[in-house]
This record gives sequence, C-alpha cells and structure tokens, in this order.
Amino acid sequence: MASQGKKLINDPNAVVTEFIEGLVETYPGLQYLDGFPEVKVVLRADYASAMLDKVAVISGGGSGHEPAHAGFVGEGMLSAAICGEVFTSPQVDAILSGIRAVTGPMGCLLVVTNYTGDRLNFGLAAEQARSEGYKVETVIVGDDCALPPLRGTAGRRGLSYNFLSLCEAQIAGAAAATGLSLDEVAAEAKRASEMVGTMGVALSVCTLPGQVTPDRLGPGKMELGLGIHGEPGAAVADLQPVEVVVSHVLQEILSPDTNYVPITPGNRVVVGCSEHLKPPLMFTPFSYISSSFWKKLLHLSATPAMELMIAAGKAVPQLQLEHGLAVDRVYTGSFMTSLDMAGFSISIMKADEAILQYLDAATKAPHWPVGVNGNRPPAKIPVPLPLSHSAKSYESLSRPQQLSEQGCLLEVAIEAAVIAIIDLRDNLNEWDGRVGDGDCGSTMCRGATAILEDMKKHYPLNDAAETVGEIGSSIRRVMGGTSGIIYTLFCKAACAHLKANTQSVVTSKQWAEALEVSIAAVSKYGGASAGFRTLLDALIPASAVLQERLNAGDDPCTAFLLSSEAAVAGAESTRHMQAQHNALHVKERLVMISTNLSIPYGRAGRSAYISSDILATVPDPGAMAAASWYRAAALAIKNKYQVHE
Amino acid sequence: MASQGKKLINDPNAVVTEFIEGLVETYPGLQYLDGFPEVKVVLRADYASAMLDKVAVISGGGSGHEPAHAGFVGEGMLSAAICGEVFTSPQVDAILSGIRAVTGPMGCLLVVTNYTGDRLNFGLAAEQARSEGYKVETVIVGDDCALPPLRGTAGRRGLSYNFLSLCEAQIAGAAAATGLSLDEVAAEAKRASEMVGTMGVALSVCTLPGQVTPDRLGPGKMELGLGIHGEPGAAVADLQPVEVVVSHVLQEILSPDTNYVPITPGNRVVVGCSEHLKPPLMFTPFSYISSSFWKKLLHLSATPAMELMIAAGKAVPQLQLEHGLAVDRVYTGSFMTSLDMAGFSISIMKADEAILQYLDAATKAPHWPVGVNGNRPPAKIPVPLPLSHSAKSYESLSRPQQLSEQGCLLEVAIEAAVIAIIDLRDNLNEWDGRVGDGDCGSTMCRGATAILEDMKKHYPLNDAAETVGEIGSSIRRVMGGTSGIIYTLFCKAACAHLKANTQSVVTSKQWAEALEVSIAAVSKYGGASAGFRTLLDALIPASAVLQERLNAGDDPCTAFLLSSEAAVAGAESTRHMQAQHNALHVKERLVMISTNLSIPYGRAGRSAYISSDILATVPDPGAMAAASWYRAAALAIKNKYQVHE
Repeated sequence: MASQGKKLINDPNAVVTEFIEGLVETYPGLQYLDGFPEVKVVLRADYASAMLDKVAVISGGGSGHEPAHAGFVGEGMLSAAICGEVFTSPQVDAILSGIRAVTGPMGCLLVVTNYTGDRLNFGLAAEQARSEGYKVETVIVGDDCALPPLRGTAGRRGLSYNFLSLCEAQIAGAAAATGLSLDEVAAEAKRASEMVGTMGVALSVCTLPGQVTPDRLGPGKMELGLGIHGEPGAAVADLQPVEVVVSHVLQEILSPDTNYVPITPGNRVVVGCSEHLKPPLMFTPFSYISSSFWKKLLHLSATPAMELMIAAGKAVPQLQLEHGLAVDRVYTGSFMTSLDMAGFSISIMKADEAILQYLDAATKAPHWPVGVNGNRPPAKIPVPLPLSHSAKSYESLSRPQQLSEQGCLLEVAIEAAVIAIIDLRDNLNEWDGRVGDGDCGSTMCRGATAILEDMKKHYPLNDAAETVGEIGSSIRRVMGGTSGIIYTLFCKAACAHLKANTQSVVTSKQWAEALEVSIAAVSKYGGASAGFRTLLDALIPASAVLQERLNAGDDPCTAFLLSSEAAVAGAESTRHMQAQHNALHVKERLVMISTNLSIPYGRAGRSAYISSDILATVPDPGAMAAASWYRAAALAIKNKYQVHE
Repeated sequence: MASQGKKLINDPNAVVTEFIEGLVETYPGLQYLDGFPEVKVVLRADYASAMLDKVAVISGGGSGHEPAHAGFVGEGMLSAAICGEVFTSPQVDAILSGIRAVTGPMGCLLVVTNYTGDRLNFGLAAEQARSEGYKVETVIVGDDCALPPLRGTAGRRGLSYNFLSLCEAQIAGAAAATGLSLDEVAAEAKRASEMVGTMGVALSVCTLPGQVTPDRLGPGKMELGLGIHGEPGAAVADLQPVEVVVSHVLQEILSPDTNYVPITPGNRVVVGCSEHLKPPLMFTPFSYISSSFWKKLLHLSATPAMELMIAAGKAVPQLQLEHGLAVDRVYTGSFMTSLDMAGFSISIMKADEAILQYLDAATKAPHWPVGVNGNRPPAKIPVPLPLSHSAKSYESLSRPQQLSEQGCLLEVAIEAAVIAIIDLRDNLNEWDGRVGDGDCGSTMCRGATAILEDMKKHYPLNDAAETVGEIGSSIRRVMGGTSGIIYTLFCKAACAHLKANTQSVVTSKQWAEALEVSIAAVSKYGGASAGFRTLLDALIPASAVLQERLNAGDDPCTAFLLSSEAAVAGAESTRHMQAQHNALHVKERLVMISTNLSIPYGRAGRSAYISSDILATVPDPGAMAAASWYRAAALAIKNKYQVHE
C-alpha cells in the first residue's frame, strides 16, 4: 500500500496493528488482545462483566474497511471484532482468541460476512471453540448456501455486504443485551438477515483532467448489481443521473419476479445507503486473486458523504411514492468503507417493531449511527421574514417631504462624499493599476453613483440610522466584490449602533462611536488592522482624532475637520507601508510553495506580490478613497455651518 | 464536479440542495429552510422550543466538507448550519435567514471559521441582524486579527480549521444548553479558541501505478505546516514515516519559541486527529482563486479512517512521553472532510474541567463523535489461553501404550485412508491439471503424510474424538489453502460432535452423526452443497447411505462398505456436473465484466472457466480424493473384522 502512492503509512505490514493502537487511544471503551501481529482482536473494555450473563456477539473480517468492524465494538453491539490483514480474512487462531476472551456461560454468536475466507476461518474457529466446550453459533449474513442453485429457482439470495452485516451486529448485540439465550439471539439475527436485500453500484472514478487511468469499465460507465449475485440485471451500464440509478437499484431489490426480499407494498422498511465494500479478493472457495489486481482495476477514491446523502434523498421518496413503502429509518454513511473503491450500495430491510427496537437500542459502539430514529417532522419550513418592525421600516422607506436640520446636514455630507469619489475615479484607477487590478475607482464610483440616485429616491434622511443603513444597501446592490461587502459591513454596523443608541437627533459623540464600531467590524470580519495598507489606515487615525478632539471639547464641526485631515495623512502614509500578512495569507504562501512560484514571503492584501519600490510610489487606493469621501463630508458640513453662521 | 469525473451527481449546481434533502431524510431531528437554491440552511427540528430560553449557536461555510457543518446540527451543538455552494461561503441573505429562524430573546452566537469569505458574509449578516433587533455575537475560530503583524511578534495565531471549529460549536452548544447568556456563551467559546493549536500535513496522492498525475508537490514530497500561518517550518519536506511527521507537527504546535498555545508540561490536553480541510479558495480579503486551480493542483483522494487512527496512535504516546502532557480525550475521524484532499491535521487543546464537561456534554448532533470519554483501562489485555481442560488434553496428547479395540480399528482405518491418498497422488494431480491448478494430489498427499507421521508420535488413538481432532490439526499444520481449511473444519466439527456425545466407545450411529455434522459444517462455511462438483459430492451420498443402512439394521461394517461404494459413485458422477454458482461467484462474474474477459456465466468452484467438454472427461479431484480415503478406510475395517472372525 505504502509503495503504491503517498500515504502516511509506515510499514505496510503494521497498518492494522497501528490502526488498532490509535483506535484504542481514541475510544477508552475499547481494548485489544496483546497478541500482535498475529492476533488483532478489539474488545469491549467491559467484556468481563458482560460475559457473565449475556451472549457475546463477535464479528470481523479483512481490514481496509474501517470503521468496520472494530468501530462497532461496544455495549449493545459487538463484544469483539477480529481484524484480519488488509483485505484478508482473520486467521483461525485470532478468531479463537477473541472467542475465548469474551465468551462466558451464555455462549457467543459469530456474525460472519458471506465471504469464503471469513466463512471458513470463522467456521473453523467456531468448531474449534465448540470442541473446547464453548457454546458457539454462527450466522452468515445475507446468504443461505443451503438453497438450491440459482437457475430456475426463485429463492432469495441477497448478498448484503456493507451496512447489513453491521445491522446484524446491532440487532444481535441488542438482542443479547436483553439477556436472550444464544439460540434466541441467533434466531433474531437470522430472521433479520432474511428480510433484507442489497444492491450496489460501482464506479471507476477518474476525477482529474489530464490523468491517464486504467479505467477498465470504460469512460462514462458504471457497474450495476454488485452485491446481488447471478441474477439478470447485473451489468455494465452508462452513467446515469442518480435518481435513475437509484430507481434501477430499488426495482431490482424489490422485484416481485426475483422475490429477493419478502417486501410488498404497504410494508414498513429500513433503508441503508452506504459506501460500497470493495469486491472481495477471493471469489470462489478455491481461488484467490491478488489485491494488486484490484488496485489496478479500481481507482483511489471515496464516495463522499455528500454523494451518499444525495442517493438517500432520492431513494426515500421513490420507496414511498413508487413502491408504496413506509420508510421508518434511513442509515446513510460510511460504515464499511473500502480502500480504493467508489460507489455505494442500498440495502432495504423489512421492518417490524422488534427490528426497529433492536436497531434503535442504545449502544456504546462508537460508529453506530445516531440520531436516525424519532418522529419525522416536515422536512422543510418556510424561510422566516425579517422581524415585523424591520419589515415595516423597509417598506415605508421614502425620502421625507420636509428635511430636519440633521437631515439637511446628512444630505449635504453624503452628496459631497459621493461626488468626491466620482471625481477621484481616474486617480483611484491609476493607483490601483500600479498595485492591483486597476478597478478601484470604477468600483467605488459605481457605489457612489448608486448612493446619489437612491438618496434622491428613498433615503429617510431625517432618520440618520436608517439612512446609513440604506447607504449600505445601495453599496451592496451595485458594488460587489470584497470592497462592496466591506463597505456594506461598515454601514450596517454603524446603522445598528445608531439605532440602538440614539433617540431622534444623533449627537456628535454618537457619530464618533458609530465610526469606531464600524471600523472594529471591518477589522474583525475583514481581518485587517492598522498598517495593513487598507482603507483602515485612513479611518483609524480619523476615528482616533475625532474622539480626541470631541473629548477635548472642540466643536463637532472642527473636530470632524481635524479628523478628516488625519484621514488624509493616514492614507498618504500607506505609501510607506508594505502589505502585511494577516491570518489568511499563509494559504497564499502555501500556494506559492506548491506551485513553485518564487514570490517573497511577507506580503499580502491588495498589494501582495508588489515590490516595495513600486509600493513607495503609490498610496493604497482604498485608503485614499476613504480619506477622500471622509474629507469631503467634513468640508461640506463645515461649509453648511458657515452658511448658517 | 460532475464534468471532471464519474461521480453520481446530477446537476453540479444542485449537489448541496440534494445533499440536504438526503440529510434530512436520514436524520429526523433536522429540518431545512424552504429557500432553495439561495437559502441552504439546516436547523434543529426542535428549534422553536429551544430558542425560547437558550442562546442559539449557528455555524456554516462552504460545502464540500461534509459531514461539516450540517451533520453537527442538533440539541447541545448547532442550532443551524448555513451551507454555501461547494467551496464557497454562504451568502449574507442565507445566513440572515438562519439567524432569523432560530434566534430568540437570548440571542445567537455565530461560530465563524477564519476564512475571509465566511468572516465577511457572517459578519455582514451579524450586523444586519443586529440592526433588525437580534442579539448577535460572533466568535472567529482560532485567529485574532487584532494581533499585531507576525514578524517579530510572539503572538499566538493558530489557524484551526478542521475539527476545531466543531469543538467550538460543541463547546458553545453545550454552554448554551446550560442556559448561559449570550455574552457568557461567547466568552466560553472565545476562551476555548485561545487554548488550541492546529497544524496540518497535506499530501498530493497518486496511489495507482501507471497514472500520470499533476503532482506539483513532487514525488515523495509532502507539505508540512498547512494550518499555521507564516511561521518558519511551513515547508515542503520528504515523505517520512508517520511517527516522524507526527513528532514534527507536535513540536511545532507546542514549541515554546513560537508560543502558539499556552500549553506547558504537566497540562491536560484534548487531541484531535482529523482529515484535513482543503485550503480555502480565497486567500486574502481582496483576491480569489478559482476552484479549478485547486482541482488541478490536488488529487482526488481521501484519508481513510485507518490512517487517521494510525496518526492518533502515534500522537498520544508522544504527547505523554515526550511532551509531558496528560491526554484526556482523543477525537479521531472525518469531521470536516474535503473533496479531493489528502492529509490530516492535529489539533491540541488545553483541557480543564469546564472544557471537558462541555466536550462530553450530550448532544443529538448526528456526527459529533461518541464514546471518547470515560475511564481509560489498560489498552491491551493478555491473549486468553484455551480453557484449562482443553489445554490439559493438548499437553497430555500421546500415543497410548496399549491400544483399545477401537483404537486398533481407528489406527487401521486412518493408515489405510492416508495410504490411499498417497497412492492416488499422481491421478489427482493429473485430473486437477485438466480442470484446476494441478496440485490437488500433492496437497492432499502432504496432509496424508503428516497424519501418518503424527499418528505414530502422539495421536491418542483410544480417544476417538481427540484423534479426529488431531487429524484436523495435522492437516491444518501442513496443508494450507482452502482444501486444508476445509478438511480441518471437517475434522474439528466431527471432533466437537464426538466429544459432546460419546462416553468411551463411539457407536456406529455416533460416527454416522459425526459425518453428517462435518458435512454440514463444510457446506455451511464453504458455501457448497450437493452438485457443486466438490468433495461433498462424494461425502453426501456416503453419509446418506450410511445412515440408511444403519437404520435398516445392517451391521456397521457392511453399512460402512456400502456407504463407501456410494462415495465412489458420487465422485464419479462429478464428471457430468458443471461447476455451480454459489453465493460468492457473482463477484467472479463482475470481474469478468469489468475486465472484459469473455467467460460464460454459470460456472464456479475449482472448475470455473472450464468448458463442459473438458469437464466431462474428468471427475472432480477433490471428490475423488474423498471417495478414495473413505473407501480405503471402509475396506480396512472390513478386513480387520474378517481377520478377527
């Protein structure tokens, strides 16, 4: 395995033992037998008390299918899991050790997957254990070889790898936990195994463009029928949309012609959608095929949780609407995975109260799915509307007939600010062209123009908080990109602060606080702070001077003006700044490493990748834009006051 | 995505909505907002009662990282998860809908991963919700951008993607469930986020031989340091054994020089080993890189559960022994996976009682790991020895000084049987050469020779049950392969039956029963029955005739002889049999399909792939061997009796 690609695995012979060591570190409820490398047995740490009066339930098989089976050991499920080497059945002696370790006077049930190696090794271990005096029963999951051969026979023969053997383990474990006798536990497991059908779909996946892959299935092909043996219908087919594939699989399983499972319309069922088990490496009782053959045939891949959920989402309505079945439980996930296998299988089990009780029974096995039982509420609920008072204010937005004094000032300031940006457009574009992509002026101008138009139409200028919020909405509507969301954030933060803290007229102190809050929001969510060569390098000094002057007793108009001078000075100072790292930029550096671009470490933001020589000749256009509108607003307020005076 | 390879996905634009539909089918405790495709919000079905007196906890982010975040919605964890498109932050309006849906008078906490898109969109949604009157706090997981820039600064800046953001969700959810106020819940989450460090290892994996892959990292290389930004040490390195990689990662996280996490020797810690999140597609607040770039750079793969467990198994002892830390909890698994990413990350969180209580608190979120808390018993326990009486009998095995009458007969029969096999070796090889791999005679002869030798040394011939068991042990020791295990099984089953049902001398009826039980065991575990062209085609008629004749009152010797004639006839009849399917052979057929071998349907067993013309000229060698030893034993018994008479 390690030799075939980059995997973080040391000695290929030690993967299973090292896996078990990590498993037991992770789950304190598990232990293992000290018999590495031959004996690889994971057991419930509380096996000693459990074996006194409960039937032990043991399963296992080749490794490479994690979390199965070791992840399903625990109270209420498996007493022990016997792990073989990767894709290899466990040896008889290891199974025997597991039986001896957890079997008490009530005996043990071996849940054996229908796979020649497992059947023979578990079978021999069972016989050996019996000859030592243990009470042992076995249930071979999903198959009954005593049935006559298939041709001409209507007998059911679901193969049922994957999730089903874990269902069996859960049912047997739950039955054992209730104190049933060995024969009763075996009977429950056997009964359940006869009520289930499984069918799989295998893909050979080649996801990456430019890869040459040994896709023996052929491009655009998939394998249907993996998991049900010999019946017509197992075939290579063209790749189809999921719902078509799912529909075919469900029809095959539930076909009244083949009668695989005793399920008829009106029945209740349990559905499992799981990653598909790799086809076994041994095919007949007498022949083996090496795993390298499969490695060449199949592709390293996995079915993501997403795809399984999508399949489940298609299967359930089809079962209900097209097959007339009531779906009681859906188990979707990676229970018995496989190295290097892509595809999924669907299992359908006829459900009754007893089966559901067993499946729902509490277990401490770490990987048995949780949260699948319970009442089924409607799947979807309506998207909530904004709270009524907000909705109302949105609806009733309009420019007032008569502007208050504050409304007048606000209009003057906004108008001046947006005109300043419009006037600065070409400069901004030029600066940005030297350090970025050259559209800063155009983008800002788009926002400014929208503000000017919207203000005339519907800004409620007498309500400062709402007006600031509306500026944010105008920006969000037209600006787009990161600068759009950052300015929207700026305005919405100010709006929220003003709304929460003002009565009707906003005081200069409240305006100053709103500015501070908005800067904090941009810094928090945008991940930049002073010195990062961004708009904050204009606004942070402006905010500081504004508060300082107001606290010092300056009149608001003067304080605003002085503050705007600080904004301009701050923006100019960005000429001498290097773009700084922030938390996000390591990703950028890693890309550089990965792609062998030789870009120096230590730059980020709009001006990453630009040498300091170039940076020194231009200010940050974002900072210059911010200084510009802020300065223009301050001057406009001052002029307005002077006119009044 | 669908265009880049075979995946069972319909419309690439619908993967997230279809995922959510399947998720909600699977987990009845979840619902979603009816706002597809823009609004993709999964919520607790019981949100309405929870929001009355509990703080809501909301998280989310781009999709393609399943089960995160939607799989972590549930009582005690997330109230809602906001899902974006694959690898794309959710939109502000979707986040806002989620906030409105689950936020009551206690307010809500947004747990935001440190990823520009998420920060800005969640940030703007938070501000918007506040301006609508909701109480909203945010915690940005694992990063504090208010810290001064990195260079020359010792500030901690763990990136903490992956499992950590889910730990935060669990801690916040558990804190909220206790009824804490919004400020308190936010404070708990913030405190936890400051106690954690994460570092990742990325691989570009090419597992399959013969594939041309765009492995930009270079062969045998891996990327260290993904997840901690900008510090020395993030580098491309040669692939190393896991323990070396893990050691490096732990040293980086815990380095006293960088002081990423406030963890010192003697501290208690919680460890997370998880699949690594794909590096985000957005790197700076101002630049985007398309996902196709990453798709080319990275390879479709996944880190199997096995590799994560192996890493965990290396990390825990190193933390304890080399770093002097007490490891209280280990979380290993796929919590926040990534499409097309190989690698893992390790997170270390300083633990205290409060953190542990939150992490251990019950949750109904379906994917939060279970079974990780509890007392840690010793990891391994001794392999149990056989029960004492069995052990004793094994030790005391020896050939008796004086053989009983039954012992004599047994010796004679065994000797005759094995000599018959030895004599038949070349015939068996020849037959097998025409239908199989030609070693049937050699393999059987190896077993026969061992039986002959072992019998002289130590078979306790006066104890028929133990002797039959010892024959099985001799076979198991030397024969190997499937026929070895099948004959071992045959003998062990007979041994167990004889031991359980006989006193001292075995009656002929008991022998007949033992034969029947042994045949049943071989049939059950081997998956073959009458007509499958195997040894059972000799033994099944032999057993039937034996029972029939004994029931009819024949003397045992005659019954055995007649029975052996049936065995020979049965073996000869295999010339006219086709090898039959049994449950296992569908796999074979699927291989045929997959590899385009044109092999007809309907064959199996040793003689699969052989045309019926050839099969008709030879009997099944396994059946002939069985008939041969059985016939020889019967004749030997008869001769022995005749001598006595």
